[in-house]
Amino acid sequence: MNETIKYIDDNAERFVDELKDFLRIPSISADPAFSADVRRAAEYVADEARRVGLENVEIYDTPGHPIVYADWLHAPGLPTVLIYGHYDVQPVDPLNLWSSPPFEPVVRGDEIYARGSVDDKGQVHMHFKSLEAIMRTTGGFPVNVKVIIEGEEEVGSPNLEPFIAAHKELLACDAVMVSDTTMYDYEMPSLTYGLRGLAYFELHVTGAKGDLHSGMFGGAVANPINILCDLIAKMKDERGHITIPGFYDEVIDVSAEERAELARLPYDVESIKSMLDIPGTVGEEGYTDLERLWARPTLDVCGIWGGYQGDGAKTVLPSKAGAKISMRLVPNQDFEKVNELFSAFIEANKPEGARVEVVWLHGGKPAMTPVDSAPMRAALTALERAFGTRPFLIRSGGSIPVVADFEEHLRAPVVLMGFGLPDQNAHAPDEKMNLKNYHRGIKSAALFLDEYARSGS
Amino acid sequence: MNETIKYIDDNAERFVDELKDFLRIPSISADPAFSADVRRAAEYVADEARRVGLENVEIYDTPGHPIVYADWLHAPGLPTVLIYGHYDVQPVDPLNLWSSPPFEPVVRGDEIYARGSVDDKGQVHMHFKSLEAIMRTTGGFPVNVKVIIEGEEEVGSPNLEPFIAAHKELLACDAVMVSDTTMYDYEMPSLTYGLRGLAYFELHVTGAKGDLHSGMFGGAVANPINILCDLIAKMKDERGHITIPGFYDEVIDVSAEERAELARLPYDVESIKSMLDIPGTVGEEGYTDLERLWARPTLDVCGIWGGYQGDGAKTVLPSKAGAKISMRLVPNQDFEKVNELFSAFIEANKPEGARVEVVWLHGGKPAMTPVDSAPMRAALTALERAFGTRPFLIRSGGSIPVVADFEEHLRAPVVLMGFGLPDQNAHAPDEKMNLKNYHRGIKSAALFLDEYARSGS
Repeated sequence: MNETIKYIDDNAERFVDELKDFLRIPSISADPAFSADVRRAAEYVADEARRVGLENVEIYDTPGHPIVYADWLHAPGLPTVLIYGHYDVQPVDPLNLWSSPPFEPVVRGDEIYARGSVDDKGQVHMHFKSLEAIMRTTGGFPVNVKVIIEGEEEVGSPNLEPFIAAHKELLACDAVMVSDTTMYDYEMPSLTYGLRGLAYFELHVTGAKGDLHSGMFGGAVANPINILCDLIAKMKDERGHITIPGFYDEVIDVSAEERAELARLPYDVESIKSMLDIPGTVGEEGYTDLERLWARPTLDVCGIWGGYQGDGAKTVLPSKAGAKISMRLVPNQDFEKVNELFSAFIEANKPEGARVEVVWLHGGKPAMTPVDSAPMRAALTALERAFGTRPFLIRSGGSIPVVADFEEHLRAPVVLMGFGLPDQNAHAPDEKMNLKNYHRGIKSAALFLDEYARSGS
Repeated sequence: MNETIKYIDDNAERFVDELKDFLRIPSISADPAFSADVRRAAEYVADEARRVGLENVEIYDTPGHPIVYADWLHAPGLPTVLIYGHYDVQPVDPLNLWSSPPFEPVVRGDEIYARGSVDDKGQVHMHFKSLEAIMRTTGGFPVNVKVIIEGEEEVGSPNLEPFIAAHKELLACDAVMVSDTTMYDYEMPSLTYGLRGLAYFELHVTGAKGDLHSGMFGGAVANPINILCDLIAKMKDERGHITIPGFYDEVIDVSAEERAELARLPYDVESIKSMLDIPGTVGEEGYTDLERLWARPTLDVCGIWGGYQGDGAKTVLPSKAGAKISMRLVPNQDFEKVNELFSAFIEANKPEGARVEVVWLHGGKPAMTPVDSAPMRAALTALERAFGTRPFLIRSGGSIPVVADFEEHLRAPVVLMGFGLPDQNAHAPDEKMNLKNYHRGIKSAALFLDEYARSGS
């Protein structure tokens, strides 16, 4: 391993240059205008897999964006690790809030700025560079390695679960390794044992067939924006509780024991306030911020539109309004049931004088991983060796829907060893990744394979 | 008058051609990008005033768009009529919903389609053509005529009231004639005796300093869109009543007598439903649709925005959201008081965890004109002669803020003789005007001056 670690140190600069090439590809999966670029990113991943010594490299087409698979299976009797990541990225608007163009990666200080730098191209790249380092310094890998990198994570991985279900043999493994989460804080390497799920809808309200003069018709014709606001306001009560009937039925409430564990983590609300420039945190009554962020479901409007958005005072009674609504779910909520409950809620509250339509966009399962397994222990040791400090066990408020799918279909524990940081603007302008963590992440990934080989599956 | 009427008939086609030239100028007063075009429209009006025989034509600059004045004062001992209108137009978006470009006027059937065709360039043009016809056939006008055409009606006439106040001598008159309203229905010529006022705000909500990942922060950081929806929903109760404390204090409720008058007007809710393609009308409990539209105040959101509006499911916790909110006011509400009440309401309901800002855009006074005056009687006779049917006395839900200013500063009754129709898409895509009404409107304008001269002031 010392040779491998030295190789990682010696090649640090080249790794960053190569990462930039990967980041330059605008692989925005949500926007059909970028589908050729998404494909190009898949090809980059396949080429990279070949370069680092993986075999059986294949780009699998799906009804959406392709899935890249590769493996190296020459460690008989030793465990198999499946490394998962995604090469697609979030949209980039509002573009004017970026300090530099999102697909022209640039290093400022210790950070590399680009869409996808931390979520998740940078973290995918860490694993490839760790594999390269091991292969070049030892001629093989300490365990069997499989890699699956998809291109639809940012749109809810609609085609990955069917792929996993149809390729259980191909993907069979003893542990899944995912680097798509954040550390608790800068010098606090972390393993994540819980993720929230997701249910994402659009709500469309249509009044009159065209925009009307608000003087001529205002007062007797339903206003779709007012209706939309009424519906959204009704979804939560004053205590921050979601009012959709049945919504909490399956929620596993956070246990007294876990509450005590979470309360032991350092949490500085003042630094959050100053980082985000907010007057304070808010949320569901009766829960701490960490509980609200990690262990409680949410309902957030991610976008809203309707009527006149230009300069000045146009007096229009609009014809249409719409909103994007995302709910984060927690174990054991089921997004299909949430979809039914949400539709029933809209049906029960539908207004007079206008039409309301619910459009289901996607769902993702919440996940919880047992903390006491061989791969989790190997990951804890690897992090401690790479960072020189004891790692933390945390949950995350984000969603990686496929984690539950892996656990369900492959019956293997999923290790969430992420190297992002909470202030790195994933999904926002000026996304960035810390290059020191990128470097330690490469080492952690290599050390994990080594530790896991020695501990047995 | 017979010669004049014949001239109007003989020149009908040329009048429409000239109207098209006026409609081609994109004089959108709300959008600074069009300010040169707004100026061009003012110059067109000034030229037209000279062509029809008016004198002392002047383009008065204001801090906003210019005001055009002209007069003809050679009827000593006879009354003076001040004709008011506006040459500016509403914005045109959503552009994709127009059947033909908004500034390329086109006649289909009996209708001319263009932004401004009915509101208000077409109706301003009627008066110029009536003046032309009288001047060419009689060599003068039957009364003294003054014309004031402004370019900021669609943004609330911010500079007209100060202009009137500063030019009381110049504008002194016995009656004000305004053609910027609608007829009650196609073959129902109408005079309008009541107008609603307006208070127009923007509401801005700001949460974190940038967009955030809705998984990482959702649940503990305030969402500006949810907050905006909560605030808007709180502004009305389930009965359609506006909940801003004090909002109704100055409202003159519709009298039993007027309710009975309004109830005598034909009102076919089925034709409204089918014209607008709505499941039904809605509004404040305890009032009929006509009362809701004409005699009760409203609160409508004219536009809303925030977060991600593109394709797909971007999971963002947005930094900002905003809305444009318009309230129609009725006598004797005062928009400045409404502004105070609204700001106090927002202050009292301001959320935790985010900042809310109220931006006042503009206000307009409501108005009521006595129906029994010499100019009103002259207008009723003129309409009956031009249309061959008895005209109706109605109110309007729209606002012409300057009407109250004229009454206050010039102490003259304002005659609202409008030739629009409720389905002509004023402020919306495919704005149009009926050319038969345009033609009868020119005759009505000429007949009014003749009748008024004969009846005395």
